[in-house]
Amino acid sequence: MTATGTRFSVWAPHAKRVDVVVEGPGGGSFALQATGGGVFTGDVAAARAGTDYRYRLDGGEPRPDPVSRWQPGGVHGPSRVVDPSAFRWTDARWKGLAMADFCVYELHVGTFTPAGTFDAAIERLAELKALGLTAIEVMPVAEFPGARNWGYDGVSLYAPHGAYGGPEGLRRLVNAAHEAGLAVVLDVVYNHVGPEGNYLPLYGPYFTETYRTPWGPAVNYDGPDSTEVRRFVIENALYWVTEYHVDALRLDAIHGIFDFGARHVLQELVERVHEQGRALGRAVQVIAESDLNDPRVVRSPAVGGLGFDAQWSDDFHHSVHALLTGEDKGYYADFGGVEPLAKAIGERFVYDGRHSVHRRRRHGAPVGDVSGDHFVIAVQNHDQVGNRAAGERLAALVSFEQQKLAAALLLLSPYVPLLFMGEEYGETNPFQYFVSHGDAKLVEAVREGRRKEFAAFGWGDDVPDPQSEQTFARSKLDWGKSRRSPHAELRALYRDLLRLRQMEPALRPGDATVSVRHDAGERWITVELTPDDGNAVVALFNLGESARAIPLPGGDDGWDPLLTTDDAPYRPSPGAAAGDGGASGGTVTLPSYTAALYRREQR
Amino acid sequence: MTATGTRFSVWAPHAKRVDVVVEGPGGGSFALQATGGGVFTGDVAAARAGTDYRYRLDGGEPRPDPVSRWQPGGVHGPSRVVDPSAFRWTDARWKGLAMADFCVYELHVGTFTPAGTFDAAIERLAELKALGLTAIEVMPVAEFPGARNWGYDGVSLYAPHGAYGGPEGLRRLVNAAHEAGLAVVLDVVYNHVGPEGNYLPLYGPYFTETYRTPWGPAVNYDGPDSTEVRRFVIENALYWVTEYHVDALRLDAIHGIFDFGARHVLQELVERVHEQGRALGRAVQVIAESDLNDPRVVRSPAVGGLGFDAQWSDDFHHSVHALLTGEDKGYYADFGGVEPLAKAIGERFVYDGRHSVHRRRRHGAPVGDVSGDHFVIAVQNHDQVGNRAAGERLAALVSFEQQKLAAALLLLSPYVPLLFMGEEYGETNPFQYFVSHGDAKLVEAVREGRRKEFAAFGWGDDVPDPQSEQTFARSKLDWGKSRRSPHAELRALYRDLLRLRQMEPALRPGDATVSVRHDAGERWITVELTPDDGNAVVALFNLGESARAIPLPGGDDGWDPLLTTDDAPYRPSPGAAAGDGGASGGTVTLPSYTAALYRREQR
Repeated sequence: MTATGTRFSVWAPHAKRVDVVVEGPGGGSFALQATGGGVFTGDVAAARAGTDYRYRLDGGEPRPDPVSRWQPGGVHGPSRVVDPSAFRWTDARWKGLAMADFCVYELHVGTFTPAGTFDAAIERLAELKALGLTAIEVMPVAEFPGARNWGYDGVSLYAPHGAYGGPEGLRRLVNAAHEAGLAVVLDVVYNHVGPEGNYLPLYGPYFTETYRTPWGPAVNYDGPDSTEVRRFVIENALYWVTEYHVDALRLDAIHGIFDFGARHVLQELVERVHEQGRALGRAVQVIAESDLNDPRVVRSPAVGGLGFDAQWSDDFHHSVHALLTGEDKGYYADFGGVEPLAKAIGERFVYDGRHSVHRRRRHGAPVGDVSGDHFVIAVQNHDQVGNRAAGERLAALVSFEQQKLAAALLLLSPYVPLLFMGEEYGETNPFQYFVSHGDAKLVEAVREGRRKEFAAFGWGDDVPDPQSEQTFARSKLDWGKSRRSPHAELRALYRDLLRLRQMEPALRPGDATVSVRHDAGERWITVELTPDDGNAVVALFNLGESARAIPLPGGDDGWDPLLTTDDAPYRPSPGAAAGDGGASGGTVTLPSYTAALYRREQR
Repeated sequence: MTATGTRFSVWAPHAKRVDVVVEGPGGGSFALQATGGGVFTGDVAAARAGTDYRYRLDGGEPRPDPVSRWQPGGVHGPSRVVDPSAFRWTDARWKGLAMADFCVYELHVGTFTPAGTFDAAIERLAELKALGLTAIEVMPVAEFPGARNWGYDGVSLYAPHGAYGGPEGLRRLVNAAHEAGLAVVLDVVYNHVGPEGNYLPLYGPYFTETYRTPWGPAVNYDGPDSTEVRRFVIENALYWVTEYHVDALRLDAIHGIFDFGARHVLQELVERVHEQGRALGRAVQVIAESDLNDPRVVRSPAVGGLGFDAQWSDDFHHSVHALLTGEDKGYYADFGGVEPLAKAIGERFVYDGRHSVHRRRRHGAPVGDVSGDHFVIAVQNHDQVGNRAAGERLAALVSFEQQKLAAALLLLSPYVPLLFMGEEYGETNPFQYFVSHGDAKLVEAVREGRRKEFAAFGWGDDVPDPQSEQTFARSKLDWGKSRRSPHAELRALYRDLLRLRQMEPALRPGDATVSVRHDAGERWITVELTPDDGNAVVALFNLGESARAIPLPGGDDGWDPLLTTDDAPYRPSPGAAAGDGGASGGTVTLPSYTAALYRREQR
C-alpha cells in the first residue's frame, strides 16, 4: 500500500510480461514494469485495502499472489490487499519469553472450539493461563484448500486461513494472548507446500528435483535462483514476527529442508529472526521439528550449529508411549522398557549414534553439551496422535493412572513441555487426519494413500475417510468433559504440576544439575534436579504394574513430599491412598504407575 | 586368507543364499553361512593367493566380489584372492608429510608414460623429486571397464586397475615413491561409480534415490542399511592407507556425497583415517575436492567442521585462467580481471557469499579463519583441462610469458600447489576425455553426451571421440619436449620456484602473515608474506599487457631481488632483459605478464 494506492511487486524470473488484474471500481489489467532480478513492479491507484487482485504472467490465466496476505475466496481465488498497519495492537508491554519459560499448549484452530475460529479460541485463553501454561502453539494457518485441514497442506504461506478468520482474526488472537500473558508460537511449514492450489511453480523455480521429501518436491534452497526462494521463506518468518507479533516460530520437519550450500538457509533464518526480535525489543524464539537427532540443530553457529533456540525431542515421547502402551510397531520398535525413557530424560537423545532397528542404520549423535531448555518434549502431539490410523489420543489408550504418570513425566522432566490440546483433561475424542480438497482425483489419492499406509498395521477400509466432514467433527474437543470426573481430576494434576514448575527453580529447564537413576528390572526412574540455590527436588516414577519401594537420593534425610499423582485431589472418587507415599528407610513406596515429587532445602 | 585357505565374507542383506564359486584345482561352488547382519561367510581350503572366484546370490549368475582386491580380467570377470602381506615393503623410514609440505604432481597413470603403467611411472620419480616436488597424486586406479579410462568410471573400488599393473604394481609405485622421498596422494571416488560393471546393486542398497548427482544415483550414506555402505567406503579409505601405504587421499567431488545424518560419513572417514595414521606412526592427510566453498569442509569438528586437512580451491584456478585467457563462458563467467585473483590469493574463496552469475545464486561463506595449508591450488588440473571439449592444456592457450606468470602465481601464493603432469615443461599435447567401455549403447550415449555438452559452446561433431584409441594416444605426455626450448626454460623456472619454496620459510603455507595489494586498473598484484622469523618476501605480479611500475611494500628499503620470471635462464633465446627488473624509487618495473620475488631480512 502506498499513500496513493497499492504498489504491486512480484518475482517471476521466467516471465516476459506480468500484469496485475485488479477487481472493483477503477480496476482492470495493469502492466507491471520489470525492475531487474526477475521482479515486476507497479503502482495502481485504484487498489486499496480490501481490493482483490491476481497476476497474469505472459498473458495466461490470472493467478493468486505468491505472497498474498489474504485469500478470502480460498487457494484458487484472488488475493486481497491488506493494510498491515490497520490493526490496533494493545500488547505494547508484552516482551516475549525466554525459552526456559515456555509451557506450551498446542492447538488446532479448527478443532479447538466448536466454531473453529481464531476468535473462538480467544475465549479459552484465560483458562489456559489459569492452568499455568505460558504459551499457545497454533498449528499452521497458511491458506489451504477448503474449510477443513489438518494443517500441513497450506499453499499460500503469507495468508492466514480465511475460514479461521483471516489476517485480522489471527491478529486478534495474538493480541488477546499477549493481554492474557500468553506467548504465541506459530507452526510454519517450509519443507513443502500442499498438493492443491500450489501456483508457485508458475512464478519461479521454487522447487527442485535434486532432493525428494516424503511430501513432494523439495523447496529450492540451494539451486539456481535460490536466493529469491530463500528470501521468500525468510521474509515469511519475519512477517509473522513483525506483522503478527508472534513470539516464536515452530518450523515443521526441518529434516525435509535440504540445503547443501555454505550458509544454511535455516541458520540464516534463525539469525534474521533473532535480529528482528532485537530490533523490535522482544524475545523471539525459533524452534525446529527435527527427527535427525543432530546436535547441530541446537548448537550455536560459533560451533557450527544452526542456532535454533530449541528443537522437538521425539525420543522422549516415543519412550513414554512405548512404555505405557506396550506398542512396538513402526518407530516404536526402537523403544520400550525403562532404559530408553531414563536415557531420554538424562541425555535428551536416546538415539545418539546407536543402531536403530526401525531406521535400519545408526542414528543421531550425543547432545549432552546443549542445555535442557533447548528441547521441547511431549507425551502426545498432533503428529503422534493424528498419524495413527484412528487418531487415538493417549487417554483412549492407557489407564487414568498412566495418564497421570505421563503428565508427571512431562512436567517434572527438565525440558520445555508441550501439551496437545485436551491432554490436560484427558480428552478421549480422537484427533484424526482430515482434509477438504476440491480436486476429486486428489481426494481419492489421499484416501488411498491413507489406506495403504495403515494396511501394514492390519487396517482395511475402516481407516477414517480424511475427506469426510464427520472425521473433522469427531476430532473436535468436547470441553464439557473437562469439568466431569475423572477429567477434572486429571486437569487438577496438570494445574498443580504446572504451578510447581513456576515455583521451583529446580524445575526450570537448563538451570539445574540433572541426575537420573533407574532400575530396569524394578521399573523405576528417579530424576534429581539441583539448581544453583541448592534447593533440590527429586521426581520418583514407578513405571511398573505393582507397588515399588524407590530409593531417595542420599537416603530420606531432609526430603519433603510435595506431590504424588495418587494424592486425593487427583483421584476420581474419594478413598484411601493406595500406598502410603511416605518416605521410610530412605525409600518411598509408590503404587503402580505413580509419580511423586520431593523437595530438599539446601543443607 | 587364512593358514588353511581363504575366508570369504560378503554383505548381501537381501540374499537368502550365497555361494562362492571358486576356480581351479579343488574349486567348485561352496555355500557360505549367514553370520548375522546380512553377512555371509565361509572358508575354502582350496582358495589361495591367485585363486579366482565369484559370488552367486540366490542361484543367479556368479558376479565379482564388491571388495575384490584384483580384477585381472576386468570389471565383469572373476575376482582374484590377493595376499596383502606378500609384498616386501622397504619404506619403513618414511613417515609422511605435513600438509604444508606438499608440492603435488597430479598424474594419470595411463598417459603419464608411453607404457601407461605403475612400473613405468616409477622411472620418472627421481626427476620429479629433483624438480622440487614432494608428492605425486595418482588419479583414480579403481578397476574400470576396458584398458583406457580418464579415471572416474571405476566400479571395483578395492581393485587397482589390471592394465596399470594391479595390486603389486601399485605397491611397487608407492614403495618407490617413498624411497625417492615423495609422498603419494591417491584420488578416490566415493560419490558415484561408473556406468558399466557396477554389480553393487545386486548385493545391497549401496545407492539411494533420495538425492541425485550429475553422475548417477547417489551413494546411500544415510538411508536404511547405510551403516554397511558407510563401512564399505570408510574401510576402503583405510585399506589404501594400510595395505598400500598411501600418504593422503584426495576425495573426488564431495559435493556429490549426501549425508543428512547427525554424524557425517566424511567426518567419520577423516577421523578414522587419522586414527589409522597415528596407529601406523605415519602422517596421513585427507583432502577434499569440493565446489561448495563451505568453510565447514576444512574446519575442525570442534567447531562443527568435517575436519579435512585440505580442500581444492578452484576459485584460484578460475581467477588465473579467466584473467590469462579472457575466457568468460560457463563458470568463467564468474571470474575475469584482477580483483577476483587478488581475493583468491588473499582470502581463499572469491565466492564467500557473493552472488554467482553462473550458479544464479549466492555461493560460499568466508573462510579466513582456516590457515593457508588447508587449500590446494592449481593453474591447471585434470578437470580444468579434460573437461574442455578439446582438452587443451594452458600451454596451448596462452603465451610463454603467461605460462611463466601462472607458474609464479601458483608457487608464490601461500597455499599448497598442485601441478598437472607436463605443466612444468609446458606440454602442448591435449589431455582429452577418454573411455573404453564395452557396452555399445553406453559408448554411443557417452559420445552423444559429450557432443551435447559442448554444443552450447559452438562445437559440432568435431568433439574428440571419447571411445577412440587415438583420443587416448594423443593425450599422452611427450617427454622428449621437456629438454627442448622453450619447454626446458619453463621447467627451469618451475624448478627454481619449487626450490625457493623449500628455502624460504615465508613461502610455507600457513606459516606467514599474508598481505595482498592490487590495482585493478594498473593490473598488478603484490603478495607480501611475513613469517615468524621476520624475513619477509614479496611477490610482484604484472598481469597486464604492458610494463608496469609496481610499488614495493613500504618502499624499496631493504628489498633484495630473488627471481624474476623474465630472468635469462627462463628465456627461450638469450638476449637482454625486456625490463630492468630493478627496484627504483620504491617501485619495480616489470615487463608485461611477468612476476618477481623480493626478500627482506628482518630489520
